[in-house]
Amino acid sequence: MLKKVLLGSLGAVLVLTAGILLGHFGIQRGSTTPDWVVDVTQDVDEALIQKFIAEVDNIAIQENLRELTKVPHMATSPGDEKTVQYMLKRWQDPETGLDQAWREEYKVYLSFPDPNTPNKVTVVSPSDAVLYTAREKEKAYSSDQEDAEVVQPYAAYAPAGHPKVGLYPPTHRQADQEDPGVVQPYAAYAPAGHPKGRLVYANQGKPSDYFLLNQTLDLTGTIAITRYGGEGRAGKAINAAPYGVIGVLVYTDPWDINDGKMSDNNETYPYSWYMPPSGVERGSFNTHYGDMLTPYLAAKDDTYRIPEKNITGIPPIPTQPIGFEDAYALICELGGEPAPSEWQGAFNCTYNFGGPGFKPTSNFNNSDVKLDIYNREELKNSANVMGVIRGSVEPDRYVIYGNHRDSWVHGAIDPSSGTSVMLEVTRVLGRMVKQGKWRPRRSIIFGSWGAEEFGLIGSTEYTEEYYSKLSERSVAYINVDIAVFANATLRASGSPSAQSVILKASKQVKTPGSDSTSVYDNWIRYFNRTSPAYGVIPNVGFLTGAGSDYAAFIHFLGITSMDISYTYDRTKTRARIYPAYHTAYDTFDYASKFIDPGFTSHQTVARTAGNVLMRLADSLLLPFNCSDYAETLEGYLNKAMELYTDGLAAHMIAIEPLQNAVRNFRSAAARLDQLIRDSDLANETPLKVRRINDQLMLLDRAFLDPGAFPDRYGFRHVIWASSKAGQATFPGLADAYTRARSTGLDSDWKEAHRQLSILIQAIQGAAHTLGDAI
Amino acid sequence: MLKKVLLGSLGAVLVLTAGILLGHFGIQRGSTTPDWVVDVTQDVDEALIQKFIAEVDNIAIQENLRELTKVPHMATSPGDEKTVQYMLKRWQDPETGLDQAWREEYKVYLSFPDPNTPNKVTVVSPSDAVLYTAREKEKAYSSDQEDAEVVQPYAAYAPAGHPKVGLYPPTHRQADQEDPGVVQPYAAYAPAGHPKGRLVYANQGKPSDYFLLNQTLDLTGTIAITRYGGEGRAGKAINAAPYGVIGVLVYTDPWDINDGKMSDNNETYPYSWYMPPSGVERGSFNTHYGDMLTPYLAAKDDTYRIPEKNITGIPPIPTQPIGFEDAYALICELGGEPAPSEWQGAFNCTYNFGGPGFKPTSNFNNSDVKLDIYNREELKNSANVMGVIRGSVEPDRYVIYGNHRDSWVHGAIDPSSGTSVMLEVTRVLGRMVKQGKWRPRRSIIFGSWGAEEFGLIGSTEYTEEYYSKLSERSVAYINVDIAVFANATLRASGSPSAQSVILKASKQVKTPGSDSTSVYDNWIRYFNRTSPAYGVIPNVGFLTGAGSDYAAFIHFLGITSMDISYTYDRTKTRARIYPAYHTAYDTFDYASKFIDPGFTSHQTVARTAGNVLMRLADSLLLPFNCSDYAETLEGYLNKAMELYTDGLAAHMIAIEPLQNAVRNFRSAAARLDQLIRDSDLANETPLKVRRINDQLMLLDRAFLDPGAFPDRYGFRHVIWASSKAGQATFPGLADAYTRARSTGLDSDWKEAHRQLSILIQAIQGAAHTLGDAI
Repeated sequence: MLKKVLLGSLGAVLVLTAGILLGHFGIQRGSTTPDWVVDVTQDVDEALIQKFIAEVDNIAIQENLRELTKVPHMATSPGDEKTVQYMLKRWQDPETGLDQAWREEYKVYLSFPDPNTPNKVTVVSPSDAVLYTAREKEKAYSSDQEDAEVVQPYAAYAPAGHPKVGLYPPTHRQADQEDPGVVQPYAAYAPAGHPKGRLVYANQGKPSDYFLLNQTLDLTGTIAITRYGGEGRAGKAINAAPYGVIGVLVYTDPWDINDGKMSDNNETYPYSWYMPPSGVERGSFNTHYGDMLTPYLAAKDDTYRIPEKNITGIPPIPTQPIGFEDAYALICELGGEPAPSEWQGAFNCTYNFGGPGFKPTSNFNNSDVKLDIYNREELKNSANVMGVIRGSVEPDRYVIYGNHRDSWVHGAIDPSSGTSVMLEVTRVLGRMVKQGKWRPRRSIIFGSWGAEEFGLIGSTEYTEEYYSKLSERSVAYINVDIAVFANATLRASGSPSAQSVILKASKQVKTPGSDSTSVYDNWIRYFNRTSPAYGVIPNVGFLTGAGSDYAAFIHFLGITSMDISYTYDRTKTRARIYPAYHTAYDTFDYASKFIDPGFTSHQTVARTAGNVLMRLADSLLLPFNCSDYAETLEGYLNKAMELYTDGLAAHMIAIEPLQNAVRNFRSAAARLDQLIRDSDLANETPLKVRRINDQLMLLDRAFLDPGAFPDRYGFRHVIWASSKAGQATFPGLADAYTRARSTGLDSDWKEAHRQLSILIQAIQGAAHTLGDAI
Repeated sequence: MLKKVLLGSLGAVLVLTAGILLGHFGIQRGSTTPDWVVDVTQDVDEALIQKFIAEVDNIAIQENLRELTKVPHMATSPGDEKTVQYMLKRWQDPETGLDQAWREEYKVYLSFPDPNTPNKVTVVSPSDAVLYTAREKEKAYSSDQEDAEVVQPYAAYAPAGHPKVGLYPPTHRQADQEDPGVVQPYAAYAPAGHPKGRLVYANQGKPSDYFLLNQTLDLTGTIAITRYGGEGRAGKAINAAPYGVIGVLVYTDPWDINDGKMSDNNETYPYSWYMPPSGVERGSFNTHYGDMLTPYLAAKDDTYRIPEKNITGIPPIPTQPIGFEDAYALICELGGEPAPSEWQGAFNCTYNFGGPGFKPTSNFNNSDVKLDIYNREELKNSANVMGVIRGSVEPDRYVIYGNHRDSWVHGAIDPSSGTSVMLEVTRVLGRMVKQGKWRPRRSIIFGSWGAEEFGLIGSTEYTEEYYSKLSERSVAYINVDIAVFANATLRASGSPSAQSVILKASKQVKTPGSDSTSVYDNWIRYFNRTSPAYGVIPNVGFLTGAGSDYAAFIHFLGITSMDISYTYDRTKTRARIYPAYHTAYDTFDYASKFIDPGFTSHQTVARTAGNVLMRLADSLLLPFNCSDYAETLEGYLNKAMELYTDGLAAHMIAIEPLQNAVRNFRSAAARLDQLIRDSDLANETPLKVRRINDQLMLLDRAFLDPGAFPDRYGFRHVIWASSKAGQATFPGLADAYTRARSTGLDSDWKEAHRQLSILIQAIQGAAHTLGDAI
């Protein structure tokens, strides 16, 4: 009986257990727990990130670059259209492409030289004889010559390592500089005209340079020759005109770009990365970014365009860039007093101010310099190429990754190094998507922008057209323009809240040619700072200017942005930028021999930027740290207190409310961080996670004020707007304070107070957004 | 054996079933299906809405009003502080209060008469003898007199019904008009000064009125008397000054406010709702809203303030409002030609232009009118009282409900009718929260705004201070200012997407004193329109002006807003507004006898607005209809096409892109509606619902453009900005087109084109936000 009872009980227990198991596992899933519960709580998959890193290939990047640099692809040129087609082909590839890709066009205001009547710079005698003519084109170096005599990459930008070098056939071909698509060097947006006058040397063309020069001689009717650097391109002419200067020349001094090297017999390209004597930096000579005729409006066919005469920020007088070979011929003949020592460059002569004009002993004595500029403005259709990977869980959250596609000439480094990297990122991610191995939580938008070289036009028009959608939904913008300036170290700039994700990615990627050193460990040796919170860490810079396509995203839309590249060892060179920048020497040959042989620095940038991209797209909690923003604001505050407290107090303006605002921001950030630490986000309502993510996503948005800088197109971010004051603090306050101190005008002190109030309100407003949900 | 087997099997089945039940119900909940799944998919509970409607009590509203109107409560006065304390007491009540309530202060720029030196208006003879002095205070009517002789409410604003009339003791007390807190009638922000000159009659003080008057006589050195209506308060003086007018009087003509009635022996208050002869409409004489010294900045202690001389939009010359009793004494003595028939009012005399000055037969012949104005501006602390009910599921989504608290005198109707309603809404909702019966899905913010009468100041400063947070998170703003103008019908204005929720609520609430007729059925008889989509429906108006505190929410922040009230039967009266508006007669006595005896219209407004509020706070899918927005845009488009196509084409400006934009908006709205219909939202990921809700919530935001109307503070919504053109179409285009047609200037046609492009971009941008998530 006992046995029977025991058996019966055992059977009952077994049956009951079976029932429980059946009830629990057999019925529950799919019946009452919705399918989406797992999806919405999914976090980033580290294995997929490792897979991505492993698959990014240097040779693929090299081949991307070879394809992109076959012909010059200046904005709206036939070569540009070829790159449009190539991007579309790649992004629409059924095996490695994106979900969708398409082109979007804008009709934009560009400026070109006349191909039939080239711009000319001559020295003309009193009897109108032409004594000297500057080069119209850069000198060609055939690839035979290059292949034969290439020297080893300069140590500064090619540290030892084991690059996986790609093999390609050394075909004999036309020199890149002879391609009919090479545009003559010119100053885009400088007006046409034929000024003739005595030459003077005006150093960098800064306001202080003309001020000093004007104290020495009468500038009326002169032509000023200036060197690149120290002042924006347009500024060199804008600052000159009020003194009566009628034309401006610009050149790149070998001191600034070539570490003094000048000879193309053995020193410059094709023997090294240095600029040959005839090399000329082209560029857009404008102050504001975006299409100049359609501020705040996307440049569609029927869009209202302002009258050309209302354009501000471009040269009022003809301007032309020339090579240092020609600059040497002119400057070393100048008369007048010797210029100050800071004005001297690398030439083996004394840089004189100019008599005005040439010295009595010169062949050019009593001669004028004449500019014949035939630039003309045109409305042209410029294309962005757009591509997307649709997000699975939050398709209405966008991570945007972009670079411009247009170059001045072949643009191997600027911008095709970045485009090659972007294409490799999309190839690896696209394949993961096409194979069904991955789909990001959030949507990813890739942008290949047009007409950046003319003023960030494609990206800016895009942000104007999609303003509402982008500002509501964009998590971040990642910009990789020039991916590799040089191959020494990573360089990154961005909003402080993005610091943590960049550092994290940089720890997971190895330096080029190394299996052990992380990008982070290498980076910290080149650029570092002491953070109150973390101690010594790599220094992530700030996006305070409008140097590339991040401008509209951070300054106009307030989207947390980043700019990532590989760059120089500054102990080895003082070049302003890689020397072939904007010249006809920025070619595949140059890039592959002198900038990144083996393309492993490109690969490293692709891995790092792609890692950041995947984390932004996939993390359950956005990898943004608002307390890092507080640290930056505190740094700015300390500087402002140090510099301005007394001066403001003397005008009855209290800086304490700014202190309070920063303190409130810090507290709100700390509380939000605490909330995040206290939350088990994977097990909480996805609406709570979304709420916190929205707070992090919209943090930079809270610093926008469209009324803060009404005269400066597209600058609305009161923390990151560019500043002239040169002080590491809040830009609006810095500029207004500096001006008020200098003029002493009551109205200027009022503007300083207004800027302070705008700043306080923005910081307080941002603190409110970080605070409790209600 | 069979029996045993059967019994054993039965037992096994029972045990198995028990096991299955245990496994399914006993384990599953709370272990793998997260608790929050039910919460996040919860929709609005109709039973709770019915409970709310049932609990809203007319007598409670009456008692709120009695309390609020005990003393005059002009902004920042001691009476205002009493209402602050009362609001806090109510909202902090442990049984019927909100989760939290607090005060927020701003230091704002107000304008008051000098209590020690009242403003004076006199007629002065050539020998400086004072021949006539206008009243300085409105006449007092004791409550004895009122109680004794009250006549039945006028049929126009008290239709038959069965109001539940509240009982209250008819105490004998001081006349309300004798309260020392009654501010002398004055024109806030009109400057102090002592102009003396010949009187002229300038009708409504419109530009066209002064233009005509100036053709008849020389206005230099004159005082103009004008009647309210047809032009903003400040405009009457701003339009006058360029003609040399040195002072302005304003009065309310009985034709415009009293249906011609003039006598306080039996016609006006205290015998009816009409304005007594000495009644004077006070008001803020300004053009822009918000604190005038701190545009775009919250008016904190240390905030930058613009110089007073830089204020625009206020009277440049002394201005004073007077009663029609005094206006009669002046106007009927005027000389000169008879004014046109449209200028004539209700007085039993001919309204002449003025000689300038009085007619030869008048006792005032050769006399001047003199204004002695002692107004002075002061910075004063004005308080908003804020209260919140925290949302349970989406605390970071706000439904805001507000009304101003400050009045000119006792303000029984303006604004205390609305405040009484708000307090009843919060009492009923607060109790449901305190009893644990309800907590809204989204957060609800209640705002009792300060200093509205001086230019919507409290609400505007609030939107400036919390700009980022509010624009990111606000679902809607509901404004109930004057809750009951009269008791004939509901009136509602709002963004088109809010039409559906207002109509829905109005169907669920009965008209005052009826058990059968819905607010909707009554409303449609008074205001209706034919909708292409729905046929004849009640007409929800547009919020095109800045008449109350919704202005900053809709025009500055782009938050979908509504304004709800009960109002007149327009077939029964042509009064501009209820006749006691801004006078010392807007008292509890007046409201309870002549506007809403029994307070059932107040109750109806509370039920309707509260219903809308609960739906906005609780609905799983926001009750906004984007296709209704498309219908409105199409109506505006048709009008624009009809009026402007040819004129624009003549200046090479195509209107077709606007057509395309509206068409795109319609398609995007239709697709989103289809997506909503095709979705089983309660069973889908809450992030999909949130995405759609964000699209609906942010729709009005997409129409903002801070550069569209740079000179008009706070007007950024390109569809709803106020317009002078008086055409039911897009305001920026309408105004710019009208101006260009009138001046013919090329620059004005350019502005018309610019406005068109701004509009197109905004509509396209809004369409983009309604489109696919990516």
